[in-house]
Amino acid sequence: MPEYAKAVTIVEPYRLEVQEYAIPPLQPGGLLMQVEMSGICGTGKHTYRGETTQYAGTVNEQTSPFPLIPGHENVGIVAEVTPGTVDFYGEPLRVGDRITMCPDVVCGKCYNCRHIFGYSWCENWRGYGNSFRATEMPLMGGWAEYMVIIPEAFVYKVPDGLAPELAVYTEIMACTYALDKAKEFSSLASEGFLSGDSVLIQGVGPLGLCHLIKARMMGAGTIIAVDTSSYRLQMARDFGADYTLDVSATSEDERVQLVHDWTRGRGVDLAIECVGYPEAVPEALRMIRRGGMYILEGVFVDMGDIPLNPHLIVSKGLRLVGLSNHPFTGYRPSMELMLRYQDTMPLDRFVTHRFPLEQAQQAIDTALGLECMKVVFEPGAQA
Amino acid sequence: MPEYAKAVTIVEPYRLEVQEYAIPPLQPGGLLMQVEMSGICGTGKHTYRGETTQYAGTVNEQTSPFPLIPGHENVGIVAEVTPGTVDFYGEPLRVGDRITMCPDVVCGKCYNCRHIFGYSWCENWRGYGNSFRATEMPLMGGWAEYMVIIPEAFVYKVPDGLAPELAVYTEIMACTYALDKAKEFSSLASEGFLSGDSVLIQGVGPLGLCHLIKARMMGAGTIIAVDTSSYRLQMARDFGADYTLDVSATSEDERVQLVHDWTRGRGVDLAIECVGYPEAVPEALRMIRRGGMYILEGVFVDMGDIPLNPHLIVSKGLRLVGLSNHPFTGYRPSMELMLRYQDTMPLDRFVTHRFPLEQAQQAIDTALGLECMKVVFEPGAQA
Amino acid sequence: MPEYAKAVTIVEPYRLEVQEYAIPPLQPGGLLMQVEMSGICGTGKHTYRGETTQYAGTVNEQTSPFPLIPGHENVGIVAEVTPGTVDFYGEPLRVGDRITMCPDVVCGKCYNCRHIFGYSWCENWRGYGNSFRATEMPLMGGWAEYMVIIPEAFVYKVPDGLAPELAVYTEIMACTYALDKAKEFSSLASEGFLSGDSVLIQGVGPLGLCHLIKARMMGAGTIIAVDTSSYRLQMARDFGADYTLDVSATSEDERVQLVHDWTRGRGVDLAIECVGYPEAVPEALRMIRRGGMYILEGVFVDMGDIPLNPHLIVSKGLRLVGLSNHPFTGYRPSMELMLRYQDTMPLDRFVTHRFPLEQAQQAIDTALGLECMKVVFEPGAQA
Amino acid sequence: MPEYAKAVTIVEPYRLEVQEYAIPPLQPGGLLMQVEMSGICGTGKHTYRGETTQYAGTVNEQTSPFPLIPGHENVGIVAEVTPGTVDFYGEPLRVGDRITMCPDVVCGKCYNCRHIFGYSWCENWRGYGNSFRATEMPLMGGWAEYMVIIPEAFVYKVPDGLAPELAVYTEIMACTYALDKAKEFSSLASEGFLSGDSVLIQGVGPLGLCHLIKARMMGAGTIIAVDTSSYRLQMARDFGADYTLDVSATSEDERVQLVHDWTRGRGVDLAIECVGYPEAVPEALRMIRRGGMYILEGVFVDMGDIPLNPHLIVSKGLRLVGLSNHPFTGYRPSMELMLRYQDTMPLDRFVTHRFPLEQAQQAIDTALGLECMKVVFEPGAQA
Repeated sequence: MPEYAKAVTIVEPYRLEVQEYAIPPLQPGGLLMQVEMSGICGTGKHTYRGETTQYAGTVNEQTSPFPLIPGHENVGIVAEVTPGTVDFYGEPLRVGDRITMCPDVVCGKCYNCRHIFGYSWCENWRGYGNSFRATEMPLMGGWAEYMVIIPEAFVYKVPDGLAPELAVYTEIMACTYALDKAKEFSSLASEGFLSGDSVLIQGVGPLGLCHLIKARMMGAGTIIAVDTSSYRLQMARDFGADYTLDVSATSEDERVQLVHDWTRGRGVDLAIECVGYPEAVPEALRMIRRGGMYILEGVFVDMGDIPLNPHLIVSKGLRLVGLSNHPFTGYRPSMELMLRYQDTMPLDRFVTHRFPLEQAQQAIDTALGLECMKVVFEPGAQA
Repeated sequence: MPEYAKAVTIVEPYRLEVQEYAIPPLQPGGLLMQVEMSGICGTGKHTYRGETTQYAGTVNEQTSPFPLIPGHENVGIVAEVTPGTVDFYGEPLRVGDRITMCPDVVCGKCYNCRHIFGYSWCENWRGYGNSFRATEMPLMGGWAEYMVIIPEAFVYKVPDGLAPELAVYTEIMACTYALDKAKEFSSLASEGFLSGDSVLIQGVGPLGLCHLIKARMMGAGTIIAVDTSSYRLQMARDFGADYTLDVSATSEDERVQLVHDWTRGRGVDLAIECVGYPEAVPEALRMIRRGGMYILEGVFVDMGDIPLNPHLIVSKGLRLVGLSNHPFTGYRPSMELMLRYQDTMPLDRFVTHRFPLEQAQQAIDTALGLECMKVVFEPGAQA
Repeated sequence: MPEYAKAVTIVEPYRLEVQEYAIPPLQPGGLLMQVEMSGICGTGKHTYRGETTQYAGTVNEQTSPFPLIPGHENVGIVAEVTPGTVDFYGEPLRVGDRITMCPDVVCGKCYNCRHIFGYSWCENWRGYGNSFRATEMPLMGGWAEYMVIIPEAFVYKVPDGLAPELAVYTEIMACTYALDKAKEFSSLASEGFLSGDSVLIQGVGPLGLCHLIKARMMGAGTIIAVDTSSYRLQMARDFGADYTLDVSATSEDERVQLVHDWTRGRGVDLAIECVGYPEAVPEALRMIRRGGMYILEGVFVDMGDIPLNPHLIVSKGLRLVGLSNHPFTGYRPSMELMLRYQDTMPLDRFVTHRFPLEQAQQAIDTALGLECMKVVFEPGAQA
Repeated sequence: MPEYAKAVTIVEPYRLEVQEYAIPPLQPGGLLMQVEMSGICGTGKHTYRGETTQYAGTVNEQTSPFPLIPGHENVGIVAEVTPGTVDFYGEPLRVGDRITMCPDVVCGKCYNCRHIFGYSWCENWRGYGNSFRATEMPLMGGWAEYMVIIPEAFVYKVPDGLAPELAVYTEIMACTYALDKAKEFSSLASEGFLSGDSVLIQGVGPLGLCHLIKARMMGAGTIIAVDTSSYRLQMARDFGADYTLDVSATSEDERVQLVHDWTRGRGVDLAIECVGYPEAVPEALRMIRRGGMYILEGVFVDMGDIPLNPHLIVSKGLRLVGLSNHPFTGYRPSMELMLRYQDTMPLDRFVTHRFPLEQAQQAIDTALGLECMKVVFEPGAQA
């Protein structure tokens, strides 16, 4: 087994370095994963720019510590495993198994773990790629040759037939259980997300595009995608959007009007915020129909106040659902759905750019541009 | 306009006749529809055999009256219309419009209409093809050249591009809002019908097959179809079933075991009864996983008691949802979903047999056999 | 029968007059009600001050027209009735019956009436005391000797034993079905409003106090009331609040801290906005626990933007539910619950001030002050 | 500390003995509880008669092993505790603390623990008083002087002011979260359990009476209790039932008719089976209104098939919810609600009979008769 592993490290905001870390000994129940692919996520981009406050107002409020090895969308191969190590379902793990993992590590014993099911709202939450200082606990992020999987982390085997470039975005697909939450809050009295309902997705970067994919899998009607990037809007159309709205080419009033035109004058049944910037929120309130639902997920990093009119929430009878994190029960079903749909949806086009660790700056610059969908590190590839 | 119209009439159990009726004058707000297609439904088959008690135990309990013109799955063309007649959405209807209609006519004013939303549980319910004696109110069923649409009935325009052989089963597709009800009763704590959940469908005649189609549209995982007809099981596979169980070739214990084998030993998340015979119910209780859901729809006609163990409902924490009727809000979305999926699902193969009115006996004999899916009358066709 | 009736009229903002109106002839299905009591509601106070934009952003957006006869919380006696006039449940109404009524008149035929159950979100909505210009349709508000009940309005008999001073706030109690909505969005995974959950009520004027009463009826745990009026906070304690927070005597930070102190450091499970001013909204976001719910009802009149941080909705996984209007199915159950609880709760203390029509200015000045709970007109009383 | 403890032991069906057991050494994280009170529950009565099959059809199917120390409704005092032992909320436990405990011990790691929240449907479930053979693991039931609490068990401190005779039925009150489940499955479209809804309770032994208490706490309207014991029906009235039906004095048809008479001809909104005998199930199907809900809890022991007509489930659109076990999150809120309501409800009359261990036969004979509500052992009392 290797003794050292290289990892892309954010040393401080706007400064990336490839550093080498000694691989620590495995804990019983833990394993070492050779990283095949690790995604660059929106949170990573915020962190790179020094926008590091997450979970504000909660017991988990944190400022991501530097130096940090990001990377919480990971797929890899079990390189070394302690005896008795099992996956999320209690099945034994073996060297050579392809796996993905849930970056959120929970204690299972706190109030939130025992009361708020599914979501990783543990009071003792620790996040891979997010809350471990590399100098204290190295290789706890996926932008690395090897990643250390501690015994408390949930690991999922990748089903046969699912390529790494699909498995790598399982975590994002698990976030789309937001749409199951919308279904859960549904009633035949036109609440929530019923068969054939219209869906507006604000921001069709990777998170938004996954919601688009999932909405289509789940029986959505008209899907409208909104973004500033024509590249991304084209991908949205390729993945099933009926209409797209280019924020850089239209005014807010024009967009609100078009959304109404496309929904028989009523507005959309369901809107999903996957933008990451709070300015998008008031616009959606104008686009949703009376009694409609709005899921907010993108504003995962604290970007401060915006002006908003609460009367609209009341007058239109809106339901807003905020979601951070995702259910750890959603990984295997997400992979199985990707396997089922990979022949009829262009799921293999989701990863648009791949970089070796050595081209970290180029990778993150690509991700910060909007001429991409998912950008990943492929640590085994040659620079 | 025509003065007379022919209609297939069940004169008494097991006796069909094509009779001619005078077309009554239209009521204001009403219209006359030239029938393009009208389906033979499971209820119609029960009625033909004299199994006529419906809605037992409710204020709507009835024995279907003879002579009866059946037919509540209808599509046709507006032949004549009174001024100001509008569709369900308030849009004006014109001669030549292709329409479908909800067979359940409700008063909108009784306790059930005002309290129990969506379902047609009106205390003054009247059902096209079901509760009108032909000698008293003629042409109130679709097995006819022309059908009388009274002002209280809900009419829906068929969207451009949706062929009559798809529009004709809109009513059955509206029944599949049962799956939205299952979603509504969902929670991320693995209740109801979540993304990727396994679904067992008992009986893949037209009602069951529509549920299979809809489950696939809505993100089901493994789908298992059960039937006695190899013809129908083959269609189930063609429409997306992963596994099929032939009741004529297996024992109950074998089927229960296979269902567990295909669901990692746990049983299915959701089962749907579309059989019409109560004997299927106890078997499903054995096939559903702990905490799973069971939707009962098929036993629409009262076929009496069967032995059943309520302990299983308790020990397994099952949820049973009985549904008669369907939401009148589901027609347009159902047609729009069919339009959306007609290129990727073989929806045009759903209607397998078409007959002119004159071949009524042959039509019903075909429907009573199981070597068919939907059998329809096509009144305009030549015998 | 009388030919004329006096009514308090808002001629223009800040200007009240008692005017006399000719009683129009009854429409078939309509009736004339002799008003016993009519409440002054928060909306009425906004209207008096010229804050008149309601339902902004919806098809029902309106500016209340002047001259206006307000009054939508009404109880009275049937003074005259046309043959065949029935109550909401289809039971005949007779002269001398004590009744209350739903101020929201709906068409029953528009998209919203047919899709969004319970709430009066009719596209053709008309509101008693709210949207009828007195010079066009007189006596369509309760601050009057007699009120005209049109056939489309829903009327409910007051059960024997329920005094007018309780029946007069049935409409507000029907608004508390918001708590049933919270229950509907519940899951055992600590979402929504479970048995024993803590409830924060912002604003314990009449709307807030009714929610407090109802929360207590429905099994709430700790209840915290927030207001600026020590008079109202005392009433909140009398009706069952465990803790109160006086906004005029504490800072926001202090209040947020106290709420956490009283909820084991976690924040409340459910908060309800009954203030009417949007400034209260951001404060509540800080007071609700992770995964908690926030019902917004008070901001019924458009008071514009406030600064708000959407990140909190995401980071805390909050659910916001906006509600205008209330279910018309909630009137009779509300009266029956009041009847049931009137011996164990001081429900007869809810109406604190009664005025004859002639003292309209004094009545509204009393209501605008905060040393009152419900202020009512009692048109039959002597000045 | 004591070295031995006496315990009532079911040696074989119908044979009780008081036996003495050596108290085993505590496991780290465990504690020893001196039992103050332990209830005799319906399951205990079944076990005594040799009706021992539970959880049939699930991975937890078991035959209760003999010799068995029953008792899963327990309250007591911490007699000895290992360092670091904490309650369910992570707070330290000390000698002298009054506690209750959840009898269902779960692993927290199996599929059910990770997917089906709240309910103790662990695949490795072990039940205090139910699944431990006394000769293998002694003192794992509450009919004993001391009870061994293993580290995996959930322990809850009894709040100050709540007497043992109330705390002893916390477990049963936790079962009434069934009513929260009914709320969760509610919609304003008159589904589930809304404010003011009518509730029928079949069987008002301790389980049924707790549901009655809780229904009243949660805003029920008309409550109807059904039982064969006039003693118990009188208690039901004392605790708030509006109507009672004595099964020994009426026919099924008469009862069905009376239920309709008391519910304006419609049937009850919600029925709850707390009888334990499956024969009660078909009767309830006749008593529930269209679209109503039926919670089955009592048939916890497998008593075999009964004849039942599934058509009624379909024709009436019923929802059946089977529940075994209860949420471990419900203990503290249940105790807090009892504390809150103990002044306005006669909660201290729930325990009607107390026996020392030595009078075990008399105790169980009393419980088997129906002239009692909760019968408890009070091991510290003198015979």
